[in-house]
Amino acid sequence: MTQQHLDNFRTHLLHNERLGLWLDTSRIDFPPGLAESLEPRLLQAYDAMKSLEAGSIANADENRMVGHYWLRAPELAPTPEITRAIEDTLKNILAFVADVHAGRVKPTHTNQFLHVLVIGIGGSALGPQLVAAALGSVNDAMIPWFFDNTDPDGFDRTIDALGDELASTLTVVISKSGGTKETRNGMLEAKAAYEKRGLDFAKHAVAVTGEGSELDKYAVEQGFLARFPMWDWVGGRTSELSAVGLLPAALQGIDVEAMLRGARWMDEATRSRQTKTNAAGRLAAAWFSATNGKGQKDMVLLPYKDRLELFSRYAQQLVMESLGKRLDRLGNEVRQGVSVYGNKGSTDQHAYVQQLRDGIDNFFVTFIEVLEDRDASRQNIEVEPGTTSGDYLSGFFQGTRRALSEQGRGSITITLEKLDAQSLGALIALYERAVGIYAELIGINAYHQPGVEAGKKAAAEVIALMRQIVRVMQEHRGQTLTLARVTELVKSTDMEAVFMILRRLSSGTNPAILRVKTQACSSPLDWLWTTNGQ
Amino acid sequence: MTQQHLDNFRTHLLHNERLGLWLDTSRIDFPPGLAESLEPRLLQAYDAMKSLEAGSIANADENRMVGHYWLRAPELAPTPEITRAIEDTLKNILAFVADVHAGRVKPTHTNQFLHVLVIGIGGSALGPQLVAAALGSVNDAMIPWFFDNTDPDGFDRTIDALGDELASTLTVVISKSGGTKETRNGMLEAKAAYEKRGLDFAKHAVAVTGEGSELDKYAVEQGFLARFPMWDWVGGRTSELSAVGLLPAALQGIDVEAMLRGARWMDEATRSRQTKTNAAGRLAAAWFSATNGKGQKDMVLLPYKDRLELFSRYAQQLVMESLGKRLDRLGNEVRQGVSVYGNKGSTDQHAYVQQLRDGIDNFFVTFIEVLEDRDASRQNIEVEPGTTSGDYLSGFFQGTRRALSEQGRGSITITLEKLDAQSLGALIALYERAVGIYAELIGINAYHQPGVEAGKKAAAEVIALMRQIVRVMQEHRGQTLTLARVTELVKSTDMEAVFMILRRLSSGTNPAILRVKTQACSSPLDWLWTTNGQ
Repeated sequence: MTQQHLDNFRTHLLHNERLGLWLDTSRIDFPPGLAESLEPRLLQAYDAMKSLEAGSIANADENRMVGHYWLRAPELAPTPEITRAIEDTLKNILAFVADVHAGRVKPTHTNQFLHVLVIGIGGSALGPQLVAAALGSVNDAMIPWFFDNTDPDGFDRTIDALGDELASTLTVVISKSGGTKETRNGMLEAKAAYEKRGLDFAKHAVAVTGEGSELDKYAVEQGFLARFPMWDWVGGRTSELSAVGLLPAALQGIDVEAMLRGARWMDEATRSRQTKTNAAGRLAAAWFSATNGKGQKDMVLLPYKDRLELFSRYAQQLVMESLGKRLDRLGNEVRQGVSVYGNKGSTDQHAYVQQLRDGIDNFFVTFIEVLEDRDASRQNIEVEPGTTSGDYLSGFFQGTRRALSEQGRGSITITLEKLDAQSLGALIALYERAVGIYAELIGINAYHQPGVEAGKKAAAEVIALMRQIVRVMQEHRGQTLTLARVTELVKSTDMEAVFMILRRLSSGTNPAILRVKTQACSSPLDWLWTTNGQ
Repeated sequence: MTQQHLDNFRTHLLHNERLGLWLDTSRIDFPPGLAESLEPRLLQAYDAMKSLEAGSIANADENRMVGHYWLRAPELAPTPEITRAIEDTLKNILAFVADVHAGRVKPTHTNQFLHVLVIGIGGSALGPQLVAAALGSVNDAMIPWFFDNTDPDGFDRTIDALGDELASTLTVVISKSGGTKETRNGMLEAKAAYEKRGLDFAKHAVAVTGEGSELDKYAVEQGFLARFPMWDWVGGRTSELSAVGLLPAALQGIDVEAMLRGARWMDEATRSRQTKTNAAGRLAAAWFSATNGKGQKDMVLLPYKDRLELFSRYAQQLVMESLGKRLDRLGNEVRQGVSVYGNKGSTDQHAYVQQLRDGIDNFFVTFIEVLEDRDASRQNIEVEPGTTSGDYLSGFFQGTRRALSEQGRGSITITLEKLDAQSLGALIALYERAVGIYAELIGINAYHQPGVEAGKKAAAEVIALMRQIVRVMQEHRGQTLTLARVTELVKSTDMEAVFMILRRLSSGTNPAILRVKTQACSSPLDWLWTTNGQ
């Protein structure tokens, strides 16, 4: 412990008494002059955040306002209509949830909804999953389950695990655009599972989606129990405090008003134009210094709390999808981003602290410490005289922070007095605001995702090609075809794609399509293909 | 699709028919001449692997043999004693598991063990967790649970979830050294939970540990139901096919002999000195090219299969702890490593493919594809005419692979015909061998972890300091002390550490120790501290 470390600690330890939250950036090196040169850009960033909160078109590429901060301060919204929409939605959620918990809204064959199956992906899953894991307990009003992909076996596993309980399961389908294929597929698979048990899906279903979307229309047409709105001024990755996150959490029995309060208080504290007292500004500045403003180091997130294990996945989306951009706001190619990974401490110490301490210097760590070990009603046991399991957890955190520092590896530490709905809301808001400020520092639009479409478009092409191949193979039933011939028949030039599709179809996905055994050691690209049956 | 891509695909698509496994490295660019210059080093690496398998002291720093390949081919072990130890252990595991499943070994208060609580961390948890998630189903003989940290609240959550079922829970305590604190703490917390319910912990407990270890002695003394051995020639991160992984998996009802067979067959296929036909050699060469042999890019692991979501965590440990080294075998400072992260596709596409496609070019992707969508006994539903959820999963994988490739982002694809015990065993072996070969290419010892001790030592110091602070605060009960004074009283110079400990103690961990309110806005380092009570 040098005097310099201590002086640094004193200068860079920020305490928010009201939130019971601390930010320590003392173990991130700031090269001489950086803090000073960042300050005018931070001031600009605070101005940009202010303008964004006032309703500017902060997401210019999509011509949209960016309004997730209004969700916890509806009075700040730029129009009375938006204020009312936010307030009414919260009221409607709480009323609906009260009806469900009281059994006034109930399933067709049992008296009470006891489970909630959330169907969503990305921004419509990671927030609800984080909150469910961080704040859930055996005393929850309803048990949360998730469909967050389009894996048929993944659907089966969840439906199997629910078993007969499906009859007492409320399904919440979440898709802002209403057109996300994974979510649509999950909904149709869930519907089939309900129907297989003689249950009416719509009488067990709720939608959270944009007004007038495909999903919205479907919900009306099918007669879902309820619908809650999403708005184009809330992006998926910042939607946890909209109906997307509030409805599942409230159904589970989590105090969503405390989550909103925590976020609101963090917003209030991070509107300061004094970087010294602005935790989001300090965090963004620390990221800038650690990554040279170019994402040159990975952000390793290590909460020393099992319940926060999903925080890194949540932050991974928030940070990487917001900051991973090709162009800056002026159209210059910048190829920005910050890679995020991590699970939890001290578990990860046994997985990869070896590399962090000794190996390649390509990261900085963010520790998250929670001062309250376990619920106050629980008796602690001593694992050694005078020492508890929690003392060890804290010791491993502090020891790792120190050992990394000794090797010149930077770290940030966020400390929460305790983990509850309010502090989790504050943590979410802190990261939302730090990402917003950091994006301003590097001059990019944090609120669009132009690169996501290409993958979707490519996927649609693959699926179209699959259909053509199945059709062509059926038309040539009984014939033996080369890969080149199939490729020609489907009018493609992409033999690789045709091969990958034939390989999959012939592995049980389509029982009629078969690989014809050729001589051993021939290249798979020389395999022959046929279709069985009449 | 260019002709060059297709030629590349033909050349770099490796098929293991017996294992139903494919490796495609065609989308990793090899700069001109690299493959040729790597070839002699690969031959040396194959020789080193051969010598390692013959029982050389491959882990020279710890003066140990490296024998995890013998676990699936006991006849290769360098001594008959080792061969017998491996064979006997497998027999003993299978016999014990048969006794448990038949109710011949049973809990004290119920007729059958129905749950298995695995207590371990790092190498003693990640393998069992991966296998449990990848191969489990609702028809499992026993339901797996884990303690993999020293978080008191994490223990409480698992014990709460088990509830009354604790009486029918078999606890497996896994610690090779027998001295891992997290695992020791987990065991003592589990013991307390059993005792709270009037159950005799030892009659519900099994140990997997090194002969004569602390844990081994404890198990004998307490009268555990059984003990299974670990050996110093098996490292934690490669112990899945020892008793560490086999016992929990077999208890769950997984076909561990098929896992061993898959690994054995992969070993056999990757002993080839022909890189062309050696999947592990090819994989290692692809890593080398992608990361410039220096870990310059992160390895993003994207299995398109929910069940494989934990594979990236498993590989994260295997790769990072093995390769993340300061020194090479000659003692030169090299600061090696490869960072690993990822969860699953297509889910992660909605989280961070935006950055992968558009943002910073600091990664390569490994896709894992499974051709079988869902269990053959399940009916597929059509989400659109002629199209299933699984078609979409495959379409998203292929589309993303293509979209990344168009942006010059490299990828590797591993394809499994289906995911079962045999193919998972093969996948584990493939990565073990690729890591071994890659370590030889860059000249490091993949089998030690010298950097882990520093964190443990630092943690022990923190815990010792905690005890001193509690003692000193008690001795000065009723007095108001400055941080400097407490630091002086405990004969420390580390005011930062003393502050962090006092802050935690005063936040409920030690109800007697209190922060004395000082005037607002004073630095937390100027806070005053006292101890309540008589």
